[in-house]
Formats: sequence, structure tokens, C-alpha cells
Amino acid sequence: MKSTSIGRFQLSLTAAVIGATLSMLALPTAAQQAMQPMAIERATILSKPGVFGVFTMFKLRPDWNKVPTAERKGAADEVKKLIEKHKDNVLVDLYLTRGLETNSDFFFRINAYDLEKAQAFMREFRSTTIGKNADVFETLVGVTKPLNYISKDKSPALNAGLSSATYSGPAPRYVIVIPVKKNAEWWNMSPEDRLKEMEVHTTPTLAYLVNVKRKLYHSTGLDDTDFITYFETDDLTAFNNLMLSLAQVKENKFHVRWGNPTTLGTIHSPEDVVKALAE
Amino acid sequence: MKSTSIGRFQLSLTAAVIGATLSMLALPTAAQQAMQPMAIERATILSKPGVFGVFTMFKLRPDWNKVPTAERKGAADEVKKLIEKHKDNVLVDLYLTRGLETNSDFFFRINAYDLEKAQAFMREFRSTTIGKNADVFETLVGVTKPLNYISKDKSPALNAGLSSATYSGPAPRYVIVIPVKKNAEWWNMSPEDRLKEMEVHTTPTLAYLVNVKRKLYHSTGLDDTDFITYFETDDLTAFNNLMLSLAQVKENKFHVRWGNPTTLGTIHSPEDVVKALAE
Amino acid sequence: MKSTSIGRFQLSLTAAVIGATLSMLALPTAAQQAMQPMAIERATILSKPGVFGVFTMFKLRPDWNKVPTAERKGAADEVKKLIEKHKDNVLVDLYLTRGLETNSDFFFRINAYDLEKAQAFMREFRSTTIGKNADVFETLVGVTKPLNYISKDKSPALNAGLSSATYSGPAPRYVIVIPVKKNAEWWNMSPEDRLKEMEVHTTPTLAYLVNVKRKLYHSTGLDDTDFITYFETDDLTAFNNLMLSLAQVKENKFHVRWGNPTTLGTIHSPEDVVKALAE
Amino acid sequence: MKSTSIGRFQLSLTAAVIGATLSMLALPTAAQQAMQPMAIERATILSKPGVFGVFTMFKLRPDWNKVPTAERKGAADEVKKLIEKHKDNVLVDLYLTRGLETNSDFFFRINAYDLEKAQAFMREFRSTTIGKNADVFETLVGVTKPLNYISKDKSPALNAGLSSATYSGPAPRYVIVIPVKKNAEWWNMSPEDRLKEMEVHTTPTLAYLVNVKRKLYHSTGLDDTDFITYFETDDLTAFNNLMLSLAQVKENKFHVRWGNPTTLGTIHSPEDVVKALAE
Amino acid sequence: MKSTSIGRFQLSLTAAVIGATLSMLALPTAAQQAMQPMAIERATILSKPGVFGVFTMFKLRPDWNKVPTAERKGAADEVKKLIEKHKDNVLVDLYLTRGLETNSDFFFRINAYDLEKAQAFMREFRSTTIGKNADVFETLVGVTKPLNYISKDKSPALNAGLSSATYSGPAPRYVIVIPVKKNAEWWNMSPEDRLKEMEVHTTPTLAYLVNVKRKLYHSTGLDDTDFITYFETDDLTAFNNLMLSLAQVKENKFHVRWGNPTTLGTIHSPEDVVKALAE
Repeated sequence: MKSTSIGRFQLSLTAAVIGATLSMLALPTAAQQAMQPMAIERATILSKPGVFGVFTMFKLRPDWNKVPTAERKGAADEVKKLIEKHKDNVLVDLYLTRGLETNSDFFFRINAYDLEKAQAFMREFRSTTIGKNADVFETLVGVTKPLNYISKDKSPALNAGLSSATYSGPAPRYVIVIPVKKNAEWWNMSPEDRLKEMEVHTTPTLAYLVNVKRKLYHSTGLDDTDFITYFETDDLTAFNNLMLSLAQVKENKFHVRWGNPTTLGTIHSPEDVVKALAE
Repeated sequence: MKSTSIGRFQLSLTAAVIGATLSMLALPTAAQQAMQPMAIERATILSKPGVFGVFTMFKLRPDWNKVPTAERKGAADEVKKLIEKHKDNVLVDLYLTRGLETNSDFFFRINAYDLEKAQAFMREFRSTTIGKNADVFETLVGVTKPLNYISKDKSPALNAGLSSATYSGPAPRYVIVIPVKKNAEWWNMSPEDRLKEMEVHTTPTLAYLVNVKRKLYHSTGLDDTDFITYFETDDLTAFNNLMLSLAQVKENKFHVRWGNPTTLGTIHSPEDVVKALAE
Repeated sequence: MKSTSIGRFQLSLTAAVIGATLSMLALPTAAQQAMQPMAIERATILSKPGVFGVFTMFKLRPDWNKVPTAERKGAADEVKKLIEKHKDNVLVDLYLTRGLETNSDFFFRINAYDLEKAQAFMREFRSTTIGKNADVFETLVGVTKPLNYISKDKSPALNAGLSSATYSGPAPRYVIVIPVKKNAEWWNMSPEDRLKEMEVHTTPTLAYLVNVKRKLYHSTGLDDTDFITYFETDDLTAFNNLMLSLAQVKENKFHVRWGNPTTLGTIHSPEDVVKALAE
Repeated sequence: MKSTSIGRFQLSLTAAVIGATLSMLALPTAAQQAMQPMAIERATILSKPGVFGVFTMFKLRPDWNKVPTAERKGAADEVKKLIEKHKDNVLVDLYLTRGLETNSDFFFRINAYDLEKAQAFMREFRSTTIGKNADVFETLVGVTKPLNYISKDKSPALNAGLSSATYSGPAPRYVIVIPVKKNAEWWNMSPEDRLKEMEVHTTPTLAYLVNVKRKLYHSTGLDDTDFITYFETDDLTAFNNLMLSLAQVKENKFHVRWGNPTTLGTIHSPEDVVKALAE
Repeated sequence: MKSTSIGRFQLSLTAAVIGATLSMLALPTAAQQAMQPMAIERATILSKPGVFGVFTMFKLRPDWNKVPTAERKGAADEVKKLIEKHKDNVLVDLYLTRGLETNSDFFFRINAYDLEKAQAFMREFRSTTIGKNADVFETLVGVTKPLNYISKDKSPALNAGLSSATYSGPAPRYVIVIPVKKNAEWWNMSPEDRLKEMEVHTTPTLAYLVNVKRKLYHSTGLDDTDFITYFETDDLTAFNNLMLSLAQVKENKFHVRWGNPTTLGTIHSPEDVVKALAE
């Protein structure tokens, strides 16, 4: 079991949006950084803005059962080597959903400074033994941005609250990915009104800093969603309560997509995921 | 035919929510219990909070007809042994839907204190003869919680009503599973207003304690539904009337999902289900 | 060509609901009758309450074309024998939709006093030559109930109108099945207001007693629909006009499902349907 | 390239409805005519009321590429012979959509006085070489009715306008089929109010009589649409402008389906369509 | 990597509509031009009105992996020759989406003065090695029109703004295609009110002329969308910000489709796309 450390928790699901749009002309430094060749370091890439996230959910075809056992058993090693080959370009996480989801058996989260590099990795995966025997059920593409709504300037008390506690539970065993899309009424609200609703949204979530890790990717125009929200936890009842508290604020009235699909999986090393599916 | 006894009937479909969210910081004992190694005892696991329920609907592929008869006939024994192997981790129920449903031929309900254990069982099932020849059509994941709205404290008269009658019909032959999702308007109502609507919801259902058994799982954030409602009955006309009475209260105006799919099956032992499909 | 006689026309599509829910505690005699072993007599079973209807739409797979001709030709006889075997348990109607529908080539209507018996028949059909080569596209399950809204007590004039004319056209050649689901606003109306709207709904339909036969099954909670409406006619322009008159009343504003799918087929003996598909 | 002549242009998409429903008891002569054995004459059948239209969209399966070339080449002749065989029962048009549509490669429009005859043709087509290698993606069934809203009596000026110009462009090379469904609010409007909106709908369309041919089938209750609108043109920019003008009138606010699918194809003889697909 | 030059940027997504509909009787010259035989010149065809655009998204079937390596390797050359053969009829662009999209691996954009010519190319592609092993997931058909809302006459200041800056970033590596459909309320607004909203829509987009290229096709009546919006960029964070700014204007409240699918791919020569998929 792998303990994924997320350098910096982004509590507010959509907090980064307004600032980004207001400061968009001053911001392209993030995009420029994305072009710089740099070795992939987990803690760094998971805390930077301007990083692309590609989530790809796969479902094994029935033919997978007919692949000779030896070839199936070799699949984990093949994937391990592919990850090694691309280690200077992408950070690869692989999760197991078989048994918990209808439409997927496993899914990737690829983090990359350059989206073309993420595409290259996913394309090569499709030519591996397991990749050739799996169908893509869902792909979500997003990019990280600086914290926006609940920033030091705009909402100092809540911003401090977000730093007042860190995850202190057991190593997370579960991962949840939930795409979020908001309607035109939300986007047509003034930045001040959206900030206000995001503060109401954020307040009840402080209590869950200790048992749920979170990360946010922005997707408007890159995919048919506005955000990809990513969570890790070891306490699914706490997570259920966190989601209920987010359902109970006014911001929820502006959602046109919240899930669809919600993807729930377990956290393992990439090799262990492939091995579990090759049994 | 198997008579499934549910230790404690949870009449109100959504009654457990408010209490759970209000007391969430005090509640993690349930989640901690889930980690304890304990033998699976049907009456106990079906009455505890903090228990995960995984519902998985399967449809046999046409290739199933081409599996040699002997192998097909052996499938029931194979499933029986798998259930035996996992008996300290999960409680397994298996139901027959072929002939009554479009998209499934059978479905599992797995109850487990630890969700990873349920995943492990379902994953291994996929490698059995029948599992390899079936597609997953639907998976629903939820967790049980203490009774909430109609509790002794908040609604004493109705709470007493819920204990005033118990199932007295013939052993149920039918099972129905109905996912339920509520809109943002519902979740934005005050707890008091939701309690009031749940009381209106509960009143007409008391008459059906004698002929319909019920159980509730909570799913917000774990799946694209808020609740999984599970029913057993021998009187489908009474069940139809119960559902009509629930359609006629104001709470129904807040549903965005009520069914889709509604799954109706018959109750048998796991072996009998597999045998019926192997004929 | 077979002339299907429906013992008693139920003009009002949803007329039976209110009475049934009001008298639900006194009603279980219908469910009890369903348990009685009794020979299946067409006119009787088609006029009783407490009878289950299972509609199953099938589409032949491309592989059907590869089944050896002799085997395909024998399929009609095989289905005939299966119907004969189950004749004490279920009434079987089979209709031809190939050429008129996208997603089905034929469909069954099974009437049974005991739903498990209908399931058993449909399950065994799946093991026949034609059943093994067909996919289920849609299954609808419902139960008949006594006339409700337009009863002698509540709406005597319209009730008399319903008996004032009977079908007098040529033997119907066409069958139409349309599922109907109503929204929460409808079910939250008072019984008096719903009765009033059902009277407005019923009035313009009296003119079509002479050329359209109708039958109603109730499905709330048994399936993702509230009603299954079944029609036979030889005059499709008249049927189109009947449906337009039902579109023009206020009740239509409460529909959330009216069709989806609408299924239009032709009426033949079961053997002739299978023979037509085996050509 | 075939020049399809439509005997009588029906400009108003829904103009025929009110009159038909008001005069429904006097109308069955059209249905009776449908029973009369009569040779199929293109100009006649395309101008009569009481004629059934069956639209069937087909997509070739990948296996089509594996059919031996000679067999594929013979497919056009086989279809030609089938059309010849049924020439006294149905009028057959076949259009090419491969390259312009996602879900179809070709589609049929069958006109028949007797719907069972159209079913028989489509059923036999399914047993031809090309029919066996194609999946049905969409079927739409409708019936023609006399002009209704914009009649000589109700709207004399516009009715005259409809006769004031005829198609004068090059032989149409393109065909477009668009199903239309209206909501309960539309059907609950008074006939006078609907007539008024249809007049507003009709006025801007007069300018397009010269470059777009149109035909209307009524489908309420026969299929999950209210109308099938059929167009032929050689000027797709003009057609785009016609559709924009129809989008800009109040009637458009009552549409719940307008397209889904919109089908765009090219006009050829049936043999040329099959030949093009057999290359 | 290929640098696609778009002769004239059309900033406003829907700016061309009103003018086109108002001047429709005077406009057919564009349609007439479409008939003229003329060699295809990239800069010219990409800047003219009356040009048809056909977008076709393809997904390789699993069988593609079983095609012998030599045959797969030859696919790029085969596609190159097909493009050469049709070079006097169509302009062909091919993009790579594998790794970034769920339902496609590559997609075509065909520009043609005559739609039948585009159909002919796409039809012949289906008979190539790669075409025979791919399924169509989406087809979008549209036509270019003269700029409308933000014209020199109607909105001179903004029209000048559109010419005040040109793309100055690195050669675009990414392509995005987003279909747009507006509701009946939008189309029922007066031309003046729509112009006003398009001005509000256009203002915040001027800042992105330097880093996002755009092109617009009109589809009402030709397909189930009103517009096809096409973008090229090298800065996806800027593109995300551009889309957010378009989400924040009132015009967004009238969208019923904005994406579904959003297609994101990378820009290469056609041969490189096929080679990448043949590896």
C-alpha cells in the first residue's frame, strides 16, 4: 500500500477560479513553466499550478480472460517498465476499481507539466498487453491553478483555517474522483457573491482536514466539466458526511454535474493493481 | 427458499441522515468498529451502523450458452465455495432477476464491515466460471448509519409506531432495490423542516410494517445516489401501494432519482440462483 | 391472425389508482387470489385484478442469421411446446415488431396470477433456440387493479359512458404498448383534484371505444414507470387521434414519461411470429 | 441522380393536426382507403392523406467488410429485385448518409397505404445480404393527414401564399429528416391560439418554397415523436436559413424534440446507394 | 508539427447569424460559388463563406491490434494517397485524440465547397485499412457564413478590436472542437438584443486574440447543433480562461449544448497521426 502525499491541501473545491480569471493576463508564467524540462518529483508536481491532470478509467474486455496466464502475469512488469521509461515526463498513479464500479476496473491519474507528455504515456499504455484488452470508459483532463477564492487576501480567516489542521488519519486506502460542473447562473454571479458562497461552502469542511485529503483540477473548455475533484481517505463514513455538508450549502443549487461518474477505488502501487487484475 | 431476517426495520427511507451529519465528529466509533476483525453473523451485521453494502447487478453474456454443460453445472458449487472462503469477511446474498429485468440476470448484495473485503470478494467472483461470462450492469455502494430523523428524541410517537408492528406475512419471495437521490433544495432545507417532511413521509408507511421489510444504505459521495433502499416482500400489490403512498407526500417533489434502475428479483439461496441460470 | 378478446375495456388509463390506495388494507384478497392454483382462461385472467403483466421486448442478434436453417425453422415449434408446458401458469401473447421498431423484433406479454410463474416462463424461453439468439431490450412489470377514478360511485355518468359502446371494428391487426409515469406534483394533488382531471381525460376518449381496445397495468415501485398502457386497434389514424386528444388535456402536463419506448407491432399467433422471424 | 417529385408541398410542419382531431369521427374514410388494393403511383401516394411513412436508418456492421466482394457487388441487384417484388405494395426510397452521419450509412423511406405492407418489405430487406450486415439505428413511423391549420377556410391568405410559388431550383441532391415533438403546454393551447402561432411559423417560410421541398407525417402514439418532417433541397445554406427562421418564432418554445437525430443524406437511386456502400 | 494558418479569425462564436438570416434572399451567391470547380487552396477555403465543414471523430476497434504490423504500418501511406487523390475537392486535416479522449482516437476536419465532395472523401476513407478498423463516434456538419453580429456596420468599435491583434504565440499544438446549441428563448430575442449580448460576449475575448485561433461553422438544421466552434492554441491555461470568460456572460444562460462532446486533440500532419496510431 502506497501513501500518497499531497503537498498542499486545497480545501475549497472551486476556490481557485475567480482569481485566475481576474489575473489571467498576468498569469501565463504558469503555462510557461509547463514547458520547462524538469524531472518529475511527486511532492513538487502535486503542489504546483499549471500542472495537467489526465484521469482515464478503463474496463477490461472479456477477452482479457483468454489471454494466456503467463502473458497476463507479465503485464504488471510491462506497466512498471513503461512508467520507468516516462518517469521524467509524467507522474503515474494507478487505482483499483474492479468490484466497486460498474464501468471501470482500474484508472490512471497522470500529472504532467506538458499535456502532450501525458498523452504520449497514455497512448503507449494502449499498446501494452493490458492496455490492448481494456476499453476507455471515461477521460477527464484538467489543469491546476493557484488558490483563488479562499486566498490570504480575500478571505484571511478561512485561509488560516485551512492551514490549522492537516491529515492525521491512517494512510488512505480509498480514492474518490468526482467531476463538477456549474450552471450559467453561477458563472454570471459577481466575483464577490461567488466568494461569499465559497466561504459558506468552506466553513463546514474545515472539520474534515484531518481525515480527507483533497486536490482540484480546472477543466472548463478542456473537457465537459468545470472541475475534477480528487479525494483520498481511510474513513468513508467521514467522507460521506463531508459530501453531505457540501450538499447542504447554497452553492450546491448551481451544480449541473456532481459525479456522473463518481469513481471510488482503492489505493495500491501500479504493479499491485495490475497483478490483482491478472489473477 | 431462504427467509432473510433483518434484525431491525428501518421504516423511514432517509431518516438517518440529519442525526448523522449533526453528530459526525462524535460518530467515528462506527468506522473504527468496521476495522475490527469479527466473524460475520447475519442478524448482527444487518442491524449495525457502519456496515458497507455493495450491490452488483450482472447480465450473462451470450457466450454463457456456449460454456460446456458440465462446466456450467459446476458453477453453483464454485460460487458456494467462494462464499465459504470469504465467510469471515462478508455476508453474501444473491438474487435472481432473469425474466423480470432488462439489464440483469442476477445481483449480489454484499454486507461487510470493511469495504476492501467486499471489493476482494466481488473481484474474485469475476474470475469464476459464471463471473467470467457476465457483465456488470450496475454497482451501488453505501454504508449504514444510525436512525436519524425518526429517533426517540426527535419524533417519539412515530418512533414508537415503528416498533408497534413487525413483519407477519409469509417468507418474502421478492426483493426490490431502488436508489434514491435528492436535489439541492432538499439538502438546503433546515434540519427541522426535513424532519417534518420525513414525519409526513413516515406516517402512511406504518400500515406496511406487516408485509414489507426494509433496509437503508447511505451513498452520498460514495456513488451517484444518496440512498440505496432495499425491500423484501411477498405481497407486490401491497408494495405497489406503499410506493404510491410515498409518491403522494411532499418529500417526493425533491427526488431527482427514484429508481433508474428499479431492480425486482426473487429470493433464493445463492446456489439455487446459479443453478437456475445454468439450466 | 388472432383476434385477442379483452374481457373488459378499461378506458381510463390511470383510473384505478386512487381507490386502490384508499382501500389498500381491505384489498389483499386480490393478492391472495394470486396464490390460488387455477387454470389460465384468457377472458378471465384478462379481466381480473391482481394479475401480473410482464412485457419483454427482444431483438435478435446478428448470429441468428448463422443458425442452421433447419434449427431456425424448428424454433416456432419449440416455442409452441414451451407455451403448452406452461399453459396452467401463464397466458402468453407474442407480437411482431421487426420492421416497425428500432430496438426490438418481437415482444411477449405474459399474464400470470403469480409473478414467479411469469419469471419461470421467461427464463425458460431464454434457453430456447430463438431465446438464446435474442437480447432483451426492455422489460416492463405491472399488476392489474380494480377500476378506480371512473367508478360507479365516484363518476357515475362517465362510468356509464364507458359501458355504452364496445369495440366494433375489424379484428385488430396492431398492438401498441406505452409506459406512463407521472411527476410528484400529480401524486401530491388531492384525490378529488386527480378525479376531476381523470374525468376531463376520459370524456374525449369515449368516441374511441368502438375502434381501440385498451388495458392497464400498475407499475409504481415494481418498475421505473407508473403504468403500462396496452392498446389493440385496426385503425391507426383513429389511434393517433385518440392519443392527440389525450395530449390536449391538463393531465398531460404531469407526465414525465409517455412512451420511451412506444412499441408498435402486429398481432399474430406465437408460432406465426417466430416463423416470420425464421424466414 | 433521381429527381423525387412531391406532388403537393406541405409548408406548415404541423398544420394538419387541429383539423384532423376536430373532424376525427368524419375522417375514417382515409383509413378505409388504406385497405383498398391499389397500384403504387409515386405522385399519388406522396400527395394522399392516410398514407403511412416508415423511415429506417441503418448502419453497416464491420463484418460487411468481410463479405466476399462478389456477394457485396450483388447486393444492389438483390435490393432492386426486392423493390420490384413489392412495387404494388410500397414506394421505396433509399438515401446515402455514410460520411455525413454518425449512426447510419443509409436510410429507407417507405410509403404504403397499409402499414403491414411496409413492415413486410422492411422485414424481407433484413434477410438480404446487405440487410443481414446492418443494424437498425432509428425507426420512425407516421401517417399523412389533410392540411389542417393553414387551410383555405382558416387561413385563406397564407393558404394562397403556399400555392404562389413552387420549387424552381436544380434537382435536389440532399435529403434531411427531422423528428419533432411538442410539449403538453402546446397541446393544451386552444385551437385558435395554435392556429395563430402556426401562421407566425408559416409566414417566414414562404420565401423558401422555391428552394426547399417539404413533406409531413404525423406520429403521436405511433412513435416517440409527434411529427416526422422531411425535406429535399439543393441549397443547404438556404435550408439552414429556413431552419433559423423557424427557430425564431414562438412555436419553437414548445419543442421538446427537434432533431435527435437530424439525418442528412444524399439522394440517389436505390441501386446507386447500395453500390456506393459495396465499393 | 504543422502550423495551420487560418486566414481570418472569427472571434465572436455566433456573430454571423443575424446578418445571414436577414440577408438570406440576397445571399445565395455563396451557395452558387460552392458549385464552382476550383482548386483547394488552404488560406482561401479557410476564409470564405459558403464552405462546408465535416468533423468526424473515429475510435479504433480492438481488432486494429490484430491487423498485421506491415499492413498497419502501410496505413499512413494509404491515407496520404487518398488525400492526394481528393486534393482538388477537399481540404483534409487530421488530429490525434488518443490518450486525451474517451470516445475517439483521431478526428478529421474536412473543408469543401461542395458537401457531396466531403461525403465522397469520408466514404472512401471508410474503405482504407484504418477506416475499416474504426467506428465513427461523432459527425458534425456545418457551413461558414459572413461575419454577422460584430460587423463594421453594426458594431464598428468591436469590429476594429477584432483586427487590432493577431495570433503571436508558438505554433499551436492543441485543437479543441466544441459544438454549441442555443435555446428557443435566444432565437426569439430581437436581433438588436442578440447583438447587444454578442457584444458583451465579444469584449472579454479580445485579450485572447494573441494566443487562441478560432473558426466558426453554422449547423442549424444540418445537424443537432447550431454551431461548431473550432480552436487552436499552444496555451491551454489561456484557453481555459477564455472559456471561463465566455461562461460569465449572460449569453451563456441560453446554451442548451456547449460541448458534449468537447474534443481535445493534438495537431500533426495526417501521416504522423496515422503512424502514431499504428505503432
